[in-house]
Amino acid sequence: MPVTDNPVEALNTALLWLDYAGVAVFAASGALVAARHKQDIITFGFFAAITGVGGGTLRDLLIDAPVFWVQRPGYIMVCLGIALLAWFLAGFNWRFRALAWLDALGISAFSVVGAAKALSLGVHPFSAMLMGIFTAIFGGVIRDVLAGQPNFIVRREIYISATILGAGLFVGLRLVGLSFWPAGLAGFGAAFALRAVAIVYGLHLPSFGQKSPHESPHEDKLS
Amino acid sequence: MPVTDNPVEALNTALLWLDYAGVAVFAASGALVAARHKQDIITFGFFAAITGVGGGTLRDLLIDAPVFWVQRPGYIMVCLGIALLAWFLAGFNWRFRALAWLDALGISAFSVVGAAKALSLGVHPFSAMLMGIFTAIFGGVIRDVLAGQPNFIVRREIYISATILGAGLFVGLRLVGLSFWPAGLAGFGAAFALRAVAIVYGLHLPSFGQKSPHESPHEDKLS
Amino acid sequence: MPVTDNPVEALNTALLWLDYAGVAVFAASGALVAARHKQDIITFGFFAAITGVGGGTLRDLLIDAPVFWVQRPGYIMVCLGIALLAWFLAGFNWRFRALAWLDALGISAFSVVGAAKALSLGVHPFSAMLMGIFTAIFGGVIRDVLAGQPNFIVRREIYISATILGAGLFVGLRLVGLSFWPAGLAGFGAAFALRAVAIVYGLHLPSFGQKSPHESPHEDKLS
Repeated sequence: MPVTDNPVEALNTALLWLDYAGVAVFAASGALVAARHKQDIITFGFFAAITGVGGGTLRDLLIDAPVFWVQRPGYIMVCLGIALLAWFLAGFNWRFRALAWLDALGISAFSVVGAAKALSLGVHPFSAMLMGIFTAIFGGVIRDVLAGQPNFIVRREIYISATILGAGLFVGLRLVGLSFWPAGLAGFGAAFALRAVAIVYGLHLPSFGQKSPHESPHEDKLS
Repeated sequence: MPVTDNPVEALNTALLWLDYAGVAVFAASGALVAARHKQDIITFGFFAAITGVGGGTLRDLLIDAPVFWVQRPGYIMVCLGIALLAWFLAGFNWRFRALAWLDALGISAFSVVGAAKALSLGVHPFSAMLMGIFTAIFGGVIRDVLAGQPNFIVRREIYISATILGAGLFVGLRLVGLSFWPAGLAGFGAAFALRAVAIVYGLHLPSFGQKSPHESPHEDKLS
Repeated sequence: MPVTDNPVEALNTALLWLDYAGVAVFAASGALVAARHKQDIITFGFFAAITGVGGGTLRDLLIDAPVFWVQRPGYIMVCLGIALLAWFLAGFNWRFRALAWLDALGISAFSVVGAAKALSLGVHPFSAMLMGIFTAIFGGVIRDVLAGQPNFIVRREIYISATILGAGLFVGLRLVGLSFWPAGLAGFGAAFALRAVAIVYGLHLPSFGQKSPHESPHEDKLS
C-alpha cells in the first residue's frame, strides 16, 4: 500500500460511506430506467441492484478483491429499498431530469471510491485510475445493455471525461502526498462540476464525424 | 459452513447431478435460440455452452470459487453433445414451446444449486439466495444479449419471481435445519410450479405502466 | 504445468510479445468501430482498450490468474496510443477492409496466446483450448455489444471455426511434445489461413436455415 498515509480504519469508513452513497444513487438510476420501461416491482429491484453494484463488482473482479457486497447484504438491501421508494415516487415528471443528476453524483463518488480502493490494495496508480473510471461507468453500461437501450458510451456528451478527471485528479493528488479527504473531495468536485456543465450546456467533445466527412454505410446505426 | 448438516460428499454428489441437469437443459435452450436464428453448427455449440455454464460462471466469480467447468471438461462436452442433438432434432414445431419448459426446469434446478453451492462455501444466506437467482437467470441473459434479442428481464412475465421463490425457500428451509434433499426438492418444486403457472396462464405482476399513466418519450422502446 | 517443456522465461517472453501484438491489433479494430460510429477521442480510447484487453481479461478471470493488464499499465497505454493513431489516420476508405484483416491477425495470435497461458498454469488441455477461443473472440463480442451492433457470433461466416482450429492445433501439438514456437506458429498460421480464405471467398458453414425450411416469427430479427 504505497500511497495510503491515512489510517486504514479511517479510509475504510470514509470509503464505506461514499460507497453506500454511490450505490444508492446508481440504484435510483436503475430503478428509474425500469420505470421508464414500465416494468414490474421485481424488475425495479433487479435493475436497482445491478446498476448499484455492477461497476464495483467489475472493479473487485479485476483487482482480485472479494466482491464487496457478497458478505455485506446491506448493499443489496439498500438497492431494494431504493427500488421500492422509486416504485411509489417515480410517477412524476421530474424523474427523467433527476436521472441525469443522480447519475452525475454517482459517477463522481465512484470515480474516487473505485480508485481509492484499488490504491489501498497496492494496485499500480495508472490502473487504480482506470478502476475509478470502470467503477463509475460500468453499472450504467450493464443497466443499458440489459434494458436494450443505447448506452452512454455511444452517445455524444462529456461523460467518461468527467470520470477520468475525477479519478485522475484523486490519484494524482494522493501520489503527491495529499491525504484522503482533500484528494477525494477535489476528485469528486471536479468530476461533478465537469459533468454538471455538460448536462446544463449539452457539451460534447468533437466527434470523428465532425473531423472527417467520409461516410460509411453503418453510420446511421446510432444516430 | 454454518448451515450444512449433510456430509459434504453427499451434498457434492447431489449438487453435481443437479448441476449437470441444469447445464444440459440450459444448453438445449441456447441451441434452440441458435436454431431460431438459423445459425451454423459451431454457433449452436457456442450458444449451448454459453447458456449452459454462463450463470454458474458468474456465481463462481462472485463468490471467488474456482469456475466450476474449467477443470471439468465434461460440462462443456455435455453442452456440445446437446448442441449436436439439437442440430439434428430441432427442426420441429415443438421446439419453441419446448424452449420455455426446458428453461423452466433449468431455472428451478439452478435456483437451488446456485444457493446450495454458495451456502456450502460459507456465503451469507441472503447473498446465497442471490447467487441462486443469478445462477438461474444469467445464462439466459448472456444468451439473449449475444443473440441480440430482447432479454426476459424486460419482458412482462413472472420469471425472476420464480427463482426468488425457489432460492429463498431453499435457503430458508436450510436455515431452520432441514437437510439438503427436502429443502432442495421444496425449492425446486415451488420455483417450477410458479413458473409453470406463469407459462400456462401468461401471468405477470402489475407493471409500473398500469400503476402510473404518465407517459414518456422512451416508453415505446420495448413495447 | 504438465505440457511446458520450454523454460518458463522463454515462454513468457514469447507470450508477452504475441500478447502485445494481439492487444494492439484488437485495439485498432475497437478504435475503427468508434470511427465508424463517429465517436469522440475518449470513446476511441475506451473501445480500443475494451477490445484490446477484453478477451484476455475474461480468460484470466475464468482461470483465476491475476488480470494481465492491471499491474502492467503498458497494455492499456498501447491501446490508447493506437486509438490516438487511429483518430488521425482512420479517415480513409481502407479502414473498413483493414478492420477484417486486423481482426484476423488478432484472433490468430490470441487463439495461441490464450491457450498457451492456460496450459502454462496447468489448466486441463480441453479447457485451455476453450481459453484460446474465448481470448480470441470475447474482445470483439464486448466491443460489438457495447457499440450496439450485431456481433459476429450471429453473422454467418467462418470465424469461431478459425479460432477452434488455431487453439486446437496448438494444444494438440503441445500435447504430443512439440515445443512452443513450432506449435504456436502452426496454430497461428492455420487460424489465419482459414480466416483469410473465409474473408476472401465469403465462406460460411451450412446454417440451420439451409437444412430446415421451418419458419419462425423471430427469424427475420437478424437477417
